[in-house]
Amino acid sequence: METAEQYLQEKAGMVNDRLAQYVESWNDIPKQLKESVAYSLLAGGKRLRPVLVLATAESLGTEAERALPFACALEMIHTYSLIHDDLPAMDDDDYRRGRLTNHKVYGEAMAILAGDALLTKAFGLMAEGALAIGLPGDTALKLIAEASRRAGAEGMVGGQVDDILHENQSVTLETLQSIHRRKTGDLITFSVRLGGMVAGANEIQLEKLTRFAEGLGLAFQIQDDILDVIGDREKLGKETGSDEARNKATYPSLLGLSASKEHLRKTIEEAKSWIEGETWLNTHTLLGLADFLTTRDR
Amino acid sequence: METAEQYLQEKAGMVNDRLAQYVESWNDIPKQLKESVAYSLLAGGKRLRPVLVLATAESLGTEAERALPFACALEMIHTYSLIHDDLPAMDDDDYRRGRLTNHKVYGEAMAILAGDALLTKAFGLMAEGALAIGLPGDTALKLIAEASRRAGAEGMVGGQVDDILHENQSVTLETLQSIHRRKTGDLITFSVRLGGMVAGANEIQLEKLTRFAEGLGLAFQIQDDILDVIGDREKLGKETGSDEARNKATYPSLLGLSASKEHLRKTIEEAKSWIEGETWLNTHTLLGLADFLTTRDR
Repeated sequence: METAEQYLQEKAGMVNDRLAQYVESWNDIPKQLKESVAYSLLAGGKRLRPVLVLATAESLGTEAERALPFACALEMIHTYSLIHDDLPAMDDDDYRRGRLTNHKVYGEAMAILAGDALLTKAFGLMAEGALAIGLPGDTALKLIAEASRRAGAEGMVGGQVDDILHENQSVTLETLQSIHRRKTGDLITFSVRLGGMVAGANEIQLEKLTRFAEGLGLAFQIQDDILDVIGDREKLGKETGSDEARNKATYPSLLGLSASKEHLRKTIEEAKSWIEGETWLNTHTLLGLADFLTTRDR
Repeated sequence: METAEQYLQEKAGMVNDRLAQYVESWNDIPKQLKESVAYSLLAGGKRLRPVLVLATAESLGTEAERALPFACALEMIHTYSLIHDDLPAMDDDDYRRGRLTNHKVYGEAMAILAGDALLTKAFGLMAEGALAIGLPGDTALKLIAEASRRAGAEGMVGGQVDDILHENQSVTLETLQSIHRRKTGDLITFSVRLGGMVAGANEIQLEKLTRFAEGLGLAFQIQDDILDVIGDREKLGKETGSDEARNKATYPSLLGLSASKEHLRKTIEEAKSWIEGETWLNTHTLLGLADFLTTRDR
């Protein structure tokens, strides 16, 4: 049987190919904008969110191909958020995944517009994808409405706002969790829900998948914080110790390293328990991904 | 019979009220983000785009109320584009409609995120609006896909990219028109098409409405350029002569003032001819708006 790492690589390849096709066939747009978009969108990365979309759809018996436009749309939303977060007015980062950030290469104006273009395109892609695969209109519209909430002021954008507002402040664990839940958690949760919706999951199934995904998103963030303390710069492709240098609240800074690791372990076990043994779901892939992603060293 | 100016005022009031309700009921978002969004979204303005949505829907016999969520979504897209265009990395404007620009009040990070939040919300609002009024799924999804193209890299965002790339360069009339067509024209054209789609217009009707709207958008832009030369600062609520000061290509700078006025007159007459005498449409309001908007002094 395929390992989670193999699955992740295989499906990330599928996502990369399709994203490259979308960029290639994105005609009638300014050349420089296309370059700026391609630079960030085709930069690789784990493709965690789109792979979760595909994995969930497949685990419910739907071909990954059907869910691919939606998976790519989510990756576009994720990429736009990274481009905007890296801007001088925000986190002011020069490097991302070991390469110069978008605005360092194309300038701030183009980086802002590349982000705007990707966010706008993502919604069009979801609508076109729904039409192409004949997803029921109501399901498609609910899915788009939820994408808007999860990625918007109630979710990811709101989380980034609160993250910026709390910079250099001491925060409670509750505030930290609230920020993470929205800034990164909402999109991860939505990835799993999206895969479920495309595959026609019912409300009870979606609810269980949601709990699983919420735990996974939280665990992923704790792992990220831990890696920033103990990770290997070479493997991660980014500087470690950056959270501490920025005086940023993290799980290790609030709980200590050892309690953070314990919290991670418990979180992931609880997450998995929401889908373990469910007969409507082929749980092998999702459980494997959950273990792999939260024991990763990069 | 109501004058175009009265109609514009009445419907702008309807849009303002609904936008205020949306902001008011936008819960679970950071307080500062809500303030920043409200500052720009509820700042008034002509509400040209949403009024065109409502006017087109009404002219086809559909209640304005049904089209209101879509009209408000378009105004959110327009507002986000203004917030981002005003940023220091873009046009670097301190004032808009006689008030400080968003980033001058709330800072660059919040302005970027307020724009992102509005763009994201707009798509959610279209999806929710379609569900609420029971718009056929296919129509709703096509409408969202078109919104993405018109507002995105192929349309408004692409136009802004080319506008920035051609700053301080001498451009041909063709390039100037291509920039305007995308930067402002596409959203104006879409306003009319959106009203038509919500009202169930057929393809032939939509085609005629599209030609009308394309001419109207172009005329509106020529008028804008002319007003920047001869307009009254008090009435416009912004500085005049700003295009010349920025060395920006405009119709008057390329054609001269008198030829620009003639071009405006011809453009609006041709636009009107696309709908004049059409029996499926109550043309009074749209023709009145076309005349009023292109003879305006503000």
